Amino acid sequence: MTAPADSTLTNHEIDAVASAAAAAAPLWATTHPAQRAAALVAAASALEQSKAELVRIAMEETALSETRLVGELNRTAVQLRLFAETILDGAYLDVRIDQLDPDFVLGPRPDVRRYLVALGPVVNFAASNFPFAFSVAGGDTVAALAAGCPVIVKAHSGHPRLSALTAKVVATALEGAGAPAGTLQVIYGQARGVAMLEHPSIKAGSFTGSIRAGRILSTVAASRTVPIPFFGELGSVNPVFVTAAAIAERADAIAEGFVTSVAGSAGQLCTKPGFLFVPSVQALAGMIAAAASAAPEQRLLNPSIAEAYRARRDAILGASGVSTVSEGSLRIDADGQGWATPTIVSTAAANLVRERGALLDEAFGPLSIVVEYSEANDLTELAAQLFDGNLTGTVHLADNENTPALGDLIDWLTDHVGRVLFGGWPTGVAVTPAMQHGGPWPATSNDSSTSVGTAAISRFLRPVAYQNAPQARLPEPLRDDNPWGVPQSISPAGESRSWGARA
Amino acid sequence: MTAPADSTLTNHEIDAVASAAAAAAPLWATTHPAQRAAALVAAASALEQSKAELVRIAMEETALSETRLVGELNRTAVQLRLFAETILDGAYLDVRIDQLDPDFVLGPRPDVRRYLVALGPVVNFAASNFPFAFSVAGGDTVAALAAGCPVIVKAHSGHPRLSALTAKVVATALEGAGAPAGTLQVIYGQARGVAMLEHPSIKAGSFTGSIRAGRILSTVAASRTVPIPFFGELGSVNPVFVTAAAIAERADAIAEGFVTSVAGSAGQLCTKPGFLFVPSVQALAGMIAAAASAAPEQRLLNPSIAEAYRARRDAILGASGVSTVSEGSLRIDADGQGWATPTIVSTAAANLVRERGALLDEAFGPLSIVVEYSEANDLTELAAQLFDGNLTGTVHLADNENTPALGDLIDWLTDHVGRVLFGGWPTGVAVTPAMQHGGPWPATSNDSSTSVGTAAISRFLRPVAYQNAPQARLPEPLRDDNPWGVPQSISPAGESRSWGARA
Repeated sequence: MTAPADSTLTNHEIDAVASAAAAAAPLWATTHPAQRAAALVAAASALEQSKAELVRIAMEETALSETRLVGELNRTAVQLRLFAETILDGAYLDVRIDQLDPDFVLGPRPDVRRYLVALGPVVNFAASNFPFAFSVAGGDTVAALAAGCPVIVKAHSGHPRLSALTAKVVATALEGAGAPAGTLQVIYGQARGVAMLEHPSIKAGSFTGSIRAGRILSTVAASRTVPIPFFGELGSVNPVFVTAAAIAERADAIAEGFVTSVAGSAGQLCTKPGFLFVPSVQALAGMIAAAASAAPEQRLLNPSIAEAYRARRDAILGASGVSTVSEGSLRIDADGQGWATPTIVSTAAANLVRERGALLDEAFGPLSIVVEYSEANDLTELAAQLFDGNLTGTVHLADNENTPALGDLIDWLTDHVGRVLFGGWPTGVAVTPAMQHGGPWPATSNDSSTSVGTAAISRFLRPVAYQNAPQARLPEPLRDDNPWGVPQSISPAGESRSWGARA
Repeated sequence: MTAPADSTLTNHEIDAVASAAAAAAPLWATTHPAQRAAALVAAASALEQSKAELVRIAMEETALSETRLVGELNRTAVQLRLFAETILDGAYLDVRIDQLDPDFVLGPRPDVRRYLVALGPVVNFAASNFPFAFSVAGGDTVAALAAGCPVIVKAHSGHPRLSALTAKVVATALEGAGAPAGTLQVIYGQARGVAMLEHPSIKAGSFTGSIRAGRILSTVAASRTVPIPFFGELGSVNPVFVTAAAIAERADAIAEGFVTSVAGSAGQLCTKPGFLFVPSVQALAGMIAAAASAAPEQRLLNPSIAEAYRARRDAILGASGVSTVSEGSLRIDADGQGWATPTIVSTAAANLVRERGALLDEAFGPLSIVVEYSEANDLTELAAQLFDGNLTGTVHLADNENTPALGDLIDWLTDHVGRVLFGGWPTGVAVTPAMQHGGPWPATSNDSSTSVGTAAISRFLRPVAYQNAPQARLPEPLRDDNPWGVPQSISPAGESRSWGARA
């Protein structure tokens, strides 16, 4: 992390941006929920109205396809609307009211009312691979905005012009709908991002990227004079386990779905299946090779991803005991950009264990490893030998297939991933209330929450209780007349009669 | 943190304890909720049945009064029952179900079901000052047990015999009610505690103690190969702000309540009011002095607390611009035990700002500082100059008193404490669903949760989602037939029609 040349100027800039966010924080946090929701909806509409220009710039900067980018922009707009509904619903406030109870078993209980409030300014480190959905107006940004937190996005260097335009479109829409100036800002450069994460006005950080960078940033967050929470989405290899019965039932669909999931967005997805465990490579190899060789060449996101992919691909192709199912291609052009078609290799499970040093790390690009296992009963032990935490784990079973060993494998996955899939493929994460995108280390730096779906709002909230406050002094969600109509969980007086100290 | 002499033996011990907890984890996490709740109730009854012996040992080891210790044991038993109810209620599981929706605005939405699962083994560092309620069977222990996590308690050195007996009583009751062996264990010694926090089988840590020790342990937790969450309750000075109108209304009650709150448990409470802001010391000094001088001498918890209190008290009494309201006493006996009566001093607000180096740190013992302010309108600015995060902040107002400045002060408190009290005193924390005990740094290392009240269960849970799982493969709380009858938040198919991409 090298400092920019003019560090005085940078400190001044950082302070100015942080101060604007800090000034916006109490105003945005106390903006009426209907207005905060309307501001998010306005941002969604503004993104859609600028779709043509945004997608054009995104295509230039990332080389992702128009179809993919239009879909991602739509997803980002829908996500803003979904969080607007979350705000209006109000369940996220987790309102709890203890009624005054003179007969409480441990002595008179005061009137206590608790809910969740916004943390304050958040710095969000944007990802390279989702220039809309995990970037300036992406998941963590909208979750923080919905919670009532101003957001400073550290733009990814892979799409600076898109970041600037997105920030302008969204900030203008937010402010036009009544949000205070400084509610959404963007900064550029690694050193500025780190300096912002260290700034006293910042109350939380979020990040999507590599394990290495995520570990550095989480250490920065934990080492501050005042430590802050840091939510990093890091690395994942998303193993998929296929039974013999599933292959007997639908080998072609599995082969095709696998290649589609690996090849989509040139394999640059955090949920790309990195390992496909099958009882027989032979049974699928032909179909996989056919599908893979039909996939068009795609450009990788940027030269540094191209170079990292080249190194990982070479290491995997050169590892002992690895066979090629579909070699695919990678060429790096004069500008350093990488162009690739899917590379699918295979190996035996025992060899994967032996060559784990070469084979296990995430290969960020269109490459996956088909692993042949000999004993379905050993899959849980194999998984335990190979994998730490992952975002996802998938099982492909036949209809009604059931063995104790499968139950063990599903239990193991529950302990080690954030989302367990039955059939289907982990890419294409739905933005919904029940989605979980996050899992045990190193999938995320903190697996208490999600970075996709409306439950992500909880990252940017903290509880506050009011004891014996007059009604007029209480925030609206805690009042008896409940003017916002939010769900209130009430503990009535007298409830302790049945469970008090009995001795 | 020095290592014990025989580190080989210690490593073996640590491994054995951690392995027992790890072996218990899947069994305890999947114990039927009715049985897990019954086990907590059995533990509550067992504590009550051993009350005489437990309280006797606690009196010997801590010198806290019988009344206080009996009350604390009752609180601890009630707390176990309250968490049993929390388990049975099931709302803590935060069940979310997205119905399969072929018409979802972003393309077909899978069936996704998410809930919270137990993290796994937890190490809980017990406190000195609550030998029952923040110790072996205390708040963090019961919250983790309720969540389905085995607990290893690092006993506080101040009450080792009590810790051993409590662990025996509670573990026997839990196991008698069907909990697996290893569900609750206790270890002794600082080095063993640190080694346990570093052990790969441990999934979270909790702590109640000093800022210094809490910072060390939170760094240990964050620096592990696999970082884990760490919930430390550290230091707090709990400022109380009294208006002139409140004094006009009830000076005597305020003076008496203040001294009672400062003197209780010899001031060794994390919510003891460390600063009382009043418009005139003169108006209260006589009443405070009378109440303070009537308070009996009490023994401090242990020699190291006595020595730390001596140093803080000397520093405060010797600081410039500090006057004595009631000098009180402190004597240290031949065994190093401290015996104290309340010490109340006063100073001007401007002097507190000047002498902050000597005066602001928490004095753990029966000492508090009355601060005379000249302008009620300046209280918010004064608070901002003086205080970081605190567990509590209190305002004493007259009936219906209302000024914009008071609104500002309450807003400032909301941003900087976990619980805002209107009248009353912060000591005597109610164990209830709405309680919040935790606040911004340095009150806690992580202010996303509480260490008192049933919301504490969230510390020890993480989310997992199942996508397109057959009903038979789903955990009970996620099934359509909902055999446990837990609250399920369902997103129905078709709900996106009204808020889809509109452009």
